[in-house]
Amino acid sequence: MPDLALSSAATALQIRRASRAGVLTGHTSGLAAAHVQANLAILPAAQAADFQRFCDLNPQACPLLAVTSPGDTAVPALGADLDLRSDVPRYRVWRDGELVDEPNDVGRWWRDDLVTFAIGCSFSFEHALLAEGIALRHVEQGRNVAMYRSAIPTRAAGPFHGPTVVSMRPLRAADAIRAVQITSRLPQVHGAPLHIGDPSLIGIHDLARPDYGDAIELRPDELPVFWACGVTPQAAIATARLPFCITHAPGHMLVTDLLNRELLGH
Amino acid sequence: MPDLALSSAATALQIRRASRAGVLTGHTSGLAAAHVQANLAILPAAQAADFQRFCDLNPQACPLLAVTSPGDTAVPALGADLDLRSDVPRYRVWRDGELVDEPNDVGRWWRDDLVTFAIGCSFSFEHALLAEGIALRHVEQGRNVAMYRSAIPTRAAGPFHGPTVVSMRPLRAADAIRAVQITSRLPQVHGAPLHIGDPSLIGIHDLARPDYGDAIELRPDELPVFWACGVTPQAAIATARLPFCITHAPGHMLVTDLLNRELLGH
Repeated sequence: MPDLALSSAATALQIRRASRAGVLTGHTSGLAAAHVQANLAILPAAQAADFQRFCDLNPQACPLLAVTSPGDTAVPALGADLDLRSDVPRYRVWRDGELVDEPNDVGRWWRDDLVTFAIGCSFSFEHALLAEGIALRHVEQGRNVAMYRSAIPTRAAGPFHGPTVVSMRPLRAADAIRAVQITSRLPQVHGAPLHIGDPSLIGIHDLARPDYGDAIELRPDELPVFWACGVTPQAAIATARLPFCITHAPGHMLVTDLLNRELLGH
Repeated sequence: MPDLALSSAATALQIRRASRAGVLTGHTSGLAAAHVQANLAILPAAQAADFQRFCDLNPQACPLLAVTSPGDTAVPALGADLDLRSDVPRYRVWRDGELVDEPNDVGRWWRDDLVTFAIGCSFSFEHALLAEGIALRHVEQGRNVAMYRSAIPTRAAGPFHGPTVVSMRPLRAADAIRAVQITSRLPQVHGAPLHIGDPSLIGIHDLARPDYGDAIELRPDELPVFWACGVTPQAAIATARLPFCITHAPGHMLVTDLLNRELLGH
């Protein structure tokens, strides 16, 4: 019998508790669909100020939803009864830039100097696009979105630098225009597109070979529309080869109590 | 000595009085630049209800700023001391769809059954784009914007029907995205673009041969961005071959007391 608690209609707290209990270990796409999901970057306080500056300098790629004090395991602004050590279905633990563990719980890795950055995620703006009747092919096809390392540089801060990673969704022009309108109202989850049209103008030479995610067909009557992507901070963290850090595993997000419609202000 | 009253810094009333006195007979582009300019369509009451419906059905092409009662020669909502018979520098008078006069004053043609429609004009959104630092090539080159009869049909009302006429401005993608954001906030002056990219998708097969205005170069790193254009209602009126009507001459607009920044709500 399927666990009805782990559905699009679940509450955010049900999803977090299922992660905490080890019942949910898969990705969170489509779960508790009304709720904002967040990318996590958990860094030692020694690197936190630089990373905060990196996010502030690159707000479209790294829109901050919340930042904790060192050692905090709760984030009341994002949810009641929320434990950062266990409420994500799968984490990644890094030492000197190398992946050393991929646990469902990071209690054994936790440190009192860890600062957590919760960063907005495109699931929220995709929810808004779908709610406005704009079809998204990768969603229809059950694939991951196509992502590329673009030639658009981020603005560096301390050890954090690198390319802006962009996600691409193929849209017909009228939908691309509406998508600009809708996502412009959602700066906390990447905001408006960075680029529309010719991929080579932003250093992408083969749409069929994304750097992350799945290739998605572009039809002759469509424009490729590119948004800044939450993989950008992950790539910058990897480049920085920090002595220690924790991130969520791709697609395994923190489900917050925030509602997507609250981001739209209605 | 140039008439300093007829400049970008002039008041709307100075421009209207100069038209009324026959001092200003040329186009109004760039004059009283802070002010909203309007397309005029002046029709007998017998056709006015159909034309109002045509505008309501096609608001991006025909955004109504004001509609008078039959016979009104003033429009307090658009300006104090405003006379619709004389305050446009040049009019066109039509009988059975044929141009019969191009006077600077339509007092001798005026009738008590004439209803005036004031329709928003792209000068206002161009002003907003320029104010945000988006360069417009046709403005830089002192040319008229390129306009095309697209394959996007208008929604018909009574005798009024025909293609949506669109204006095209070449923009790089980042500026095209900002232009969508800016013009989306200006529904009274055509609002957001109708199309971006491949012209053939909206039935335009040669950008170098516009149906109205001047051809404008499209560079390899640019997208053509298409907006609904105030020539659409003029084309629909011509197609309808009304027994009688009056319009402004192209580029010779009614300068109103409304401020462009008021349209933006700030």
